[in-house]
Amino acid sequence: MNTDIQRNNLISEGDRESFYRVVFSRRDVRGQFLPDPVDEKVLARILQAAHHAPSVGFMQPWDFIIIESEKIRRQIHNVFNQAHNEAAEMFEEERKETYKSLKLEGIMDAPVNICITCDRRRTGPVVIGRTHIREMDIYSSVCAIQNFWLAARAEGLGVGWVSIFHEDALKNILDLPEHIVPVGYLCLGHVKYFYDRPELELVGWQNRMPLEELVYFDKWGNQEEPEGSSLKKELKNAEKCFIER
Amino acid sequence: MNTDIQRNNLISEGDRESFYRVVFSRRDVRGQFLPDPVDEKVLARILQAAHHAPSVGFMQPWDFIIIESEKIRRQIHNVFNQAHNEAAEMFEEERKETYKSLKLEGIMDAPVNICITCDRRRTGPVVIGRTHIREMDIYSSVCAIQNFWLAARAEGLGVGWVSIFHEDALKNILDLPEHIVPVGYLCLGHVKYFYDRPELELVGWQNRMPLEELVYFDKWGNQEEPEGSSLKKELKNAEKCFIER
Repeated sequence: MNTDIQRNNLISEGDRESFYRVVFSRRDVRGQFLPDPVDEKVLARILQAAHHAPSVGFMQPWDFIIIESEKIRRQIHNVFNQAHNEAAEMFEEERKETYKSLKLEGIMDAPVNICITCDRRRTGPVVIGRTHIREMDIYSSVCAIQNFWLAARAEGLGVGWVSIFHEDALKNILDLPEHIVPVGYLCLGHVKYFYDRPELELVGWQNRMPLEELVYFDKWGNQEEPEGSSLKKELKNAEKCFIER
Repeated sequence: MNTDIQRNNLISEGDRESFYRVVFSRRDVRGQFLPDPVDEKVLARILQAAHHAPSVGFMQPWDFIIIESEKIRRQIHNVFNQAHNEAAEMFEEERKETYKSLKLEGIMDAPVNICITCDRRRTGPVVIGRTHIREMDIYSSVCAIQNFWLAARAEGLGVGWVSIFHEDALKNILDLPEHIVPVGYLCLGHVKYFYDRPELELVGWQNRMPLEELVYFDKWGNQEEPEGSSLKKELKNAEKCFIER
């Protein structure tokens, strides 16, 4: 008998519903952070969830820099501001003012910031599954970020991913060696509330796309369902079940 | 009153435990797929979970190519085999034989294959949050992959991510336009069983790293806990709770 296998029915129907509740209520939080400290027991669980993300060749390329120092958060906030001003100039006139009015980070508001990195040299130069697509290690760190984000929501905490930086400025502040990529910079904390839908949808910046238009069959561009398939109908049904309250 | 906010206590303690059960029992499945068809209602729910991943600037850059055609899966299996043989030559002699003995894909065994892509032009050239780190759109597609993977596990289904391809060969078979990146190629299906731990850990290829060694405070390389912190102890406690059964 193989003792390395999971017991049957480890995941129940109730677990499944709970899981989807977490997925559909997760938000990118920017303006609703509270200053209340994050319990270390909770942070530890969230970090373990991140550490149990999939990784190419089981290389676990991530590290986690927990940033609570106000001085360092201030430095990071400054380089965000610089990049944010540059970014505003890239939008066309009509959208520029809207862009400037959006709050896009909670660096100083959230009590904990976390940088999740990718060590491109971990476990040596040849890694199973990374031999032909070199970015697979970075993708593993992104999977850890998504596990972290969902786990935080399951704990009732909010996360915001801040990506408006010059990468070198961030690496410099955090003393990252050359081969370490700062894949995600996250703000973590308790929140006043979670929005019902993504903020960029609520403010009318961008709509949710209909999923059935993003699904192809066998080849790019083929939206004709195979005979007997009713996947597109089921996609709409699933959306109704999950999204409408 | 703001009607766009979520109700209080939407996520219960039970939901949290269910969520962690899914995270810690998710596996990369290669050799345990069953040929049984995947219910379209279930596939639709999993795809909706992927579609509700976070995306930079809410650009939703993903598309989903559902590949059930045996002919196309055969073509993809062929380009996998070619790359897999090339990969074997990259390992040092002692590991080469082990590498060759590992089953690394379920392309023909799983009834459904899915390519999750990134459309780098979606919503136009300037995207909120992608102005300084150009890869953020690809990272969004990876978040969709991780949601897909976890949702499949919540549904009792297995997923394996196949990454041993020349990207051009894959793009060619699936007719992907130049600006579409095939970020993840996934095999999906029912499974005989799930392993208890990652297969590369079970076969002794690579160990799980102790999480407390991957955590730094405020700057890269600083493993000294701030005064009053007991995060490292809590990381070990969390691991015990989640992993030991």
